[in-house]
Amino acid sequence: MSEGRVVIIGGDAAGMSAAAKIRREQPERDILVLEKTAHTSYSACGMPYYIGGLVDDVDSLVARTPERFREKYAIDVRTGHEVTRIDAVAQRVEVRAGNGKIIYEPYDQLLIATGARPFCPDAPGAGAEGIFGLSTLSSGIRVKEFLAREKPQRAVVVGGGYIGLEMAEALVRQQVEVSLVQRGQQVMSTLDPDMGALVSQALRDIGVDLLLSEEFRAFEVNGGRVMAVITAQRRLPADIVILGMGVRPNAELAEAAGLELGAKNAIKVDGRMRTSTPNVWAAGDCVATVHRLTGQPVYIALGTVANKQGLVAGTNLCGRQAWFPGVVGTAVSKICEVEVARTGLQEKELQSLGCRYASATIETRTRAGYYPGSGPITVKLIGEQGSGRLLGAQIVGMEGAAKRIDIIATALTAAMTVGDLIDLDLSYAPPFSPVWDPVQTAARQLVKKL
Amino acid sequence: MSEGRVVIIGGDAAGMSAAAKIRREQPERDILVLEKTAHTSYSACGMPYYIGGLVDDVDSLVARTPERFREKYAIDVRTGHEVTRIDAVAQRVEVRAGNGKIIYEPYDQLLIATGARPFCPDAPGAGAEGIFGLSTLSSGIRVKEFLAREKPQRAVVVGGGYIGLEMAEALVRQQVEVSLVQRGQQVMSTLDPDMGALVSQALRDIGVDLLLSEEFRAFEVNGGRVMAVITAQRRLPADIVILGMGVRPNAELAEAAGLELGAKNAIKVDGRMRTSTPNVWAAGDCVATVHRLTGQPVYIALGTVANKQGLVAGTNLCGRQAWFPGVVGTAVSKICEVEVARTGLQEKELQSLGCRYASATIETRTRAGYYPGSGPITVKLIGEQGSGRLLGAQIVGMEGAAKRIDIIATALTAAMTVGDLIDLDLSYAPPFSPVWDPVQTAARQLVKKL
Repeated sequence: MSEGRVVIIGGDAAGMSAAAKIRREQPERDILVLEKTAHTSYSACGMPYYIGGLVDDVDSLVARTPERFREKYAIDVRTGHEVTRIDAVAQRVEVRAGNGKIIYEPYDQLLIATGARPFCPDAPGAGAEGIFGLSTLSSGIRVKEFLAREKPQRAVVVGGGYIGLEMAEALVRQQVEVSLVQRGQQVMSTLDPDMGALVSQALRDIGVDLLLSEEFRAFEVNGGRVMAVITAQRRLPADIVILGMGVRPNAELAEAAGLELGAKNAIKVDGRMRTSTPNVWAAGDCVATVHRLTGQPVYIALGTVANKQGLVAGTNLCGRQAWFPGVVGTAVSKICEVEVARTGLQEKELQSLGCRYASATIETRTRAGYYPGSGPITVKLIGEQGSGRLLGAQIVGMEGAAKRIDIIATALTAAMTVGDLIDLDLSYAPPFSPVWDPVQTAARQLVKKL
Repeated sequence: MSEGRVVIIGGDAAGMSAAAKIRREQPERDILVLEKTAHTSYSACGMPYYIGGLVDDVDSLVARTPERFREKYAIDVRTGHEVTRIDAVAQRVEVRAGNGKIIYEPYDQLLIATGARPFCPDAPGAGAEGIFGLSTLSSGIRVKEFLAREKPQRAVVVGGGYIGLEMAEALVRQQVEVSLVQRGQQVMSTLDPDMGALVSQALRDIGVDLLLSEEFRAFEVNGGRVMAVITAQRRLPADIVILGMGVRPNAELAEAAGLELGAKNAIKVDGRMRTSTPNVWAAGDCVATVHRLTGQPVYIALGTVANKQGLVAGTNLCGRQAWFPGVVGTAVSKICEVEVARTGLQEKELQSLGCRYASATIETRTRAGYYPGSGPITVKLIGEQGSGRLLGAQIVGMEGAAKRIDIIATALTAAMTVGDLIDLDLSYAPPFSPVWDPVQTAARQLVKKL
């Protein structure tokens, strides 16, 4: 695998991390990247901040342009090139080039890094103008342009996942009235309901009209343009609709080529990012990975994971050995001033695993109580009965709260117990923490229940 | 040890953590706390912020007052009571009560939590008015009163440890001209010189006249009052002098009673906080502890450690079993906007241990580069050649930088390798981090050298 032509489908996080790694190790290697859109290596996570006006220049979301890859890295990046078929027997891909022509590109090694797309319900009116999902940078630019051109007054966000919430904030910042429709009883279903309730409150506090336990039904369309969102309970007028119901892996090309799929119909890969088909690799939001705590397959579309998997794939494509060990389920977000983080397993997962667990939830301060800027922080910690093993954590709080989740992510990876957390030599000074860090205060409560 | 009278010498972090723990477990236990000053359970670490004017009310530095301990906890706390002798054979302490009378108090179990005091060089003029160390809350109040009354124009801070630096900032905030005299080539000797240089620059940036590689010699005194600090190079006029050369354990009572001493002449204890003498325990800034990486004795005076040791001592005094496992050397501070953190072993320690190590230092951003408030962060990571084991880290950077040290403190405790750090599932969203967390960016650099 360490010689011959590498073709990479997709020029964002995973694809370009791999391409750059290969180029660093193999200055002469023939690398072709085929990217459907006009952009490479952009921060998809940054789009809500661009749309909301916190970031002015869309170019600042681009880490490296196609030109830079061509000139500085000598990588043959072709934008506006959409791969339409993988022929894994002939080892070539069928490509619709920018000019509409169909061409064929042979490969010795193929890396599929096709990413994911927002889930769009198969509902009446779903194709109408004014309905947006966010995935590619182009999709973010389209939303920004729509806001500038159409000056929508009323927005409906369908779904309360991370992107839904971040977009709700972005639209509020743009003086749009926002309703958010969420099927579940709280937003952010990766949190337990009690912690999700804190986030729901944060959304209400910034003026979002939050409609919980409300089922989406259809889009009302007039003249090809969205007019309203219809739920089981009501009609919500909408000049713009944002899809925030999570993403689905772009695995159709892979499936059509006969590759095995895994969790959530994402592409199945091993720890080295090999697919079930020889000389075909995959990485990023289009693949399934493994949860380090349960050993079970899981689908998590995140930039951190995509970058790491791209690096692993690139390393292996150079003929070295690298493994992606999986995830522990870490995620973080911010709703205006409120920081939200989670890692590990949540209660509903533990129940479905039949795990005997206990949890403790504490509220304390982000800094020493007397220090300026100290704010509330709520930490929920979950541990296994009997073994005392740490299983997960969720944090909601003000500035400085969320990054504490990394302590737990590290401790989970090391299979620490809740008692081990108490013993950690964590940093303390009044501008940073109470003398017992909030995660340790939670551990002191939880350890009594285990 | 789980019955009979407990006498505790010292009413701050370690002493009162133990007392509170015992009371929670044993509502009827006879607990006597003898505290030399007028205060209990205060945040000594908060004093620079009180003196600097960031915290207005000195009472806010007090977590629990003596009255509260008496009333809510039914603990017999006697302030203004100084223990002058421990008779470990008769199991009693000699006490100078508030009224000057000498009394004797018997104990079944004794906990020594006498803390530490600022190191004061044995130099001419050391006893003069205007020279202050910071240890007890009373000492902080004295500095604040001196500033209000005497309105000093020029201050000299002798020594560039954490308290010296925090006090330099506090005095700058109070419009006092500050010179800081440091024997070494950089401030903060717990950092390697290259990282210490960044902190030196931060001090200069806030207007501190920083005199490095300059040896303190004497105080110039006139009429019992300090007039100047004399160094090997010059005379520095001073209306007020702050001692920032670290602290020494208050172990004299213990030593006189025949207890074994350990590192830096602090009281030697085992993991359960037992001293060498039966029924005598010790905890907090007066004891030596163990470094979890080297297994060697070490003396570290920090509020976090004192609180944990107090809890461990209290748990054992109730007849349960608890151990304090030692420290990994974590510390954090803030010089105006610049955050500083360290953990693990520094280069000079590794050299003296004969350890083959490599280090990598990277500069990146605290948040996604395009996100508002993103600032520079420098991370130095040290690992062992061959084994790849993580050995330590130092961080200097803007808001959000320092608390990342906790990831490393946790990873050190788990004996992770530098490669393990790269694989961690750390949290990422643009307001919190670049997509590769700075500690992982450093790990990616370091792993190439190991």
